[in-house]
Amino acid sequence: MHASESHVPEAEPPPAGAPSPAPSVTRAGCDVLVVGGGVIGLVTAWRTAQRGLSVAVADPRPGGGAGQVAAGMLAAVTELHYGEEALFALNLSSARRYPAFTAELEEASGQDTGYRACGTLAVALDADDRAQLRELHALQQRSGLELQWLTGRECRRLEPMLAPGVCGGLRADGDHQTDPRRLLRALLIACERAGVAFLRSEAVRLLVSRDRATGAELADGSRVHAGQTVLAAGAHSGALAGVPEQVLPPVRPVKGQVLRLRVPREYALFLSRTVRALVRGGPVYLVPRENGELVVGATTEELGWDTGVTAGGVYELLRDAHELVPGITELPLLEARAGLRPGSPDNFPLLGPTELPGLHTATGHYRNGVLLAPLTGEVMAEALTRGRLPEEARPFSPRRFSHPHLNALQELPR
Amino acid sequence: MHASESHVPEAEPPPAGAPSPAPSVTRAGCDVLVVGGGVIGLVTAWRTAQRGLSVAVADPRPGGGAGQVAAGMLAAVTELHYGEEALFALNLSSARRYPAFTAELEEASGQDTGYRACGTLAVALDADDRAQLRELHALQQRSGLELQWLTGRECRRLEPMLAPGVCGGLRADGDHQTDPRRLLRALLIACERAGVAFLRSEAVRLLVSRDRATGAELADGSRVHAGQTVLAAGAHSGALAGVPEQVLPPVRPVKGQVLRLRVPREYALFLSRTVRALVRGGPVYLVPRENGELVVGATTEELGWDTGVTAGGVYELLRDAHELVPGITELPLLEARAGLRPGSPDNFPLLGPTELPGLHTATGHYRNGVLLAPLTGEVMAEALTRGRLPEEARPFSPRRFSHPHLNALQELPR
Repeated sequence: MHASESHVPEAEPPPAGAPSPAPSVTRAGCDVLVVGGGVIGLVTAWRTAQRGLSVAVADPRPGGGAGQVAAGMLAAVTELHYGEEALFALNLSSARRYPAFTAELEEASGQDTGYRACGTLAVALDADDRAQLRELHALQQRSGLELQWLTGRECRRLEPMLAPGVCGGLRADGDHQTDPRRLLRALLIACERAGVAFLRSEAVRLLVSRDRATGAELADGSRVHAGQTVLAAGAHSGALAGVPEQVLPPVRPVKGQVLRLRVPREYALFLSRTVRALVRGGPVYLVPRENGELVVGATTEELGWDTGVTAGGVYELLRDAHELVPGITELPLLEARAGLRPGSPDNFPLLGPTELPGLHTATGHYRNGVLLAPLTGEVMAEALTRGRLPEEARPFSPRRFSHPHLNALQELPR
Repeated sequence: MHASESHVPEAEPPPAGAPSPAPSVTRAGCDVLVVGGGVIGLVTAWRTAQRGLSVAVADPRPGGGAGQVAAGMLAAVTELHYGEEALFALNLSSARRYPAFTAELEEASGQDTGYRACGTLAVALDADDRAQLRELHALQQRSGLELQWLTGRECRRLEPMLAPGVCGGLRADGDHQTDPRRLLRALLIACERAGVAFLRSEAVRLLVSRDRATGAELADGSRVHAGQTVLAAGAHSGALAGVPEQVLPPVRPVKGQVLRLRVPREYALFLSRTVRALVRGGPVYLVPRENGELVVGATTEELGWDTGVTAGGVYELLRDAHELVPGITELPLLEARAGLRPGSPDNFPLLGPTELPGLHTATGHYRNGVLLAPLTGEVMAEALTRGRLPEEARPFSPRRFSHPHLNALQELPR
């Protein structure tokens, strides 16, 4: 299916006097090859092409990946966890970029991305859940955030569909949402307009020559040579042949099942913001889109590469969501689908150059891929053009997982 | 889409010496027009064509209808209810026909129909449900049936996946299953081979001339003239324009949502027979097919013509099925779908001639359409060829709902 495609177009010379075109990807190669065309791969490609490098994305179906399933919560504040303060700073930094990022991307692509500054309400349904939420509140306060604690009654005043059992909540007015499917579409178009070449075939092997990554071989048999190669294939980023074991990103698939319901037009005010809770210790969230879609997520399952929707996954989501918002009973159920998050050993992403010259990673974003897209695009473009990560991203270098004996390897030229 | 189709083929003269062909449906008309190509319409058409009448079926999508959703339980014994002894006799009579009916239909069509003589186990999960099941057992005994009462432990010995909470059960070794989707496919082919003409357009109006039904007008504008017309459109049978109010069948749609799960090959002995229960008073059943499909049904909702799958319907089915067989959690969920059963005021079907000469009904089968298919085919063919219902079907004449003042109307010629 992909074998006959000539996916590295010949460059034509620019017409005299024309504005400077995007640098060309030629059959001989490109400056940067991005392996994976999901949210992270595309935002990396777009931002890098904007800086004047020639960029190609290898993916049989660009615009796919976990973003096709994700709910799109931009939950820097309500996803704060103990011991993850460094990630919190990164998440918050990316969340703050979202309005400008959205504006620029929508301008560049001509597409709406479904960004909605609706805020989030995190609620508790019983004393245990409330105690956990109180702890999150305390942690937020220690991190310098001032969130408002609400009684159950105050929660229901904000969101009248909440169950009578809701006994407290935290108002996170800065945790917004975007629509990852629309975001993907916009990124695809922005990439195309920025001159990114799409190689619609799977990368099957990293090319390494003289201790340097030099591109990849694709499933259609072609070889794409690149000055720098970025592993941005989500949960699959650790599975590319030819990557030396010492620099293989330690990511694993973490399955998430997600439901999509429809709020009929006559229930327009069903929910006005993202509502989330711990229900018996497990997280559930309901993300209402402006177009009437209501996303309910998500399971967290360590089940290898399985992406099947199970009776148990759908049951748990419906049970917990029903406990939180009993009125969902009446809503049409449109879709049940599973995706694979790229989990890493410390739940932090792996951004920037590896110990192997010419090889970068942009993966391991776990639950925060959509949230971290604006920041990831910027820091990867910086690393790819200047050879080093910006300060705020350095704790997330993939080198933190490198084998000790690799520390003596030559550093990337800076 | 249907307007340009010439759906009443011209008859060609049979070649001399050829075996007697099926009687022709001509542009001028046919002996019998069946409105509706679901299980009941098709079995009526097939059996009637076998008796030498020319038969046409009007349906934009023959082979559809509630049978595409139904689980296919042949549950004469476990669906016995107080006050429905007459229906029980009919159901049992049809259930006894199933093996021979299946053999004949599979021979005629060359298709497997998924008939499986697996039996049924009806179980109780708590004391209330057990009391109800005991009452059913007593009613069965009064009806001359000898079913075996099992303890919870005996139930789990038969079906090890049953929940530990199962506290009693009834073994109904004669309540089998068929696969309604395969049954529909086989009936379509058997009809074609028996010379039934398919008019792929919706009947929109009954034609009545001089106090006699004379066929129907179709959505494509054509008029099909028929000596006798059969309303066999399931829940839609009461909605055909042109049917005099006094003979309009009093059927209503009763929505049922059904799930289809898949039992992976390595769990081959997940369930070996149909398992059903009342869970907090509501019925739930799990029907395991030989091909690995596990059907979980069904909700019963009076919601008009809505056929949407709802969060609440799927939730209830999964909750109750999970309570009955906790192991379903691991099974892939393949499909959630809703259909409309044709409910009647007394839950009994409406079979045979109405008070309007030339108009028959074969509808109102409610939960028993698949079970009653063999019997319905036979009694309808009898009524259509001989003008009267066989004795056992007479309590189910649509005339029981006729307006009192219509009783003076001329009876059909016998």
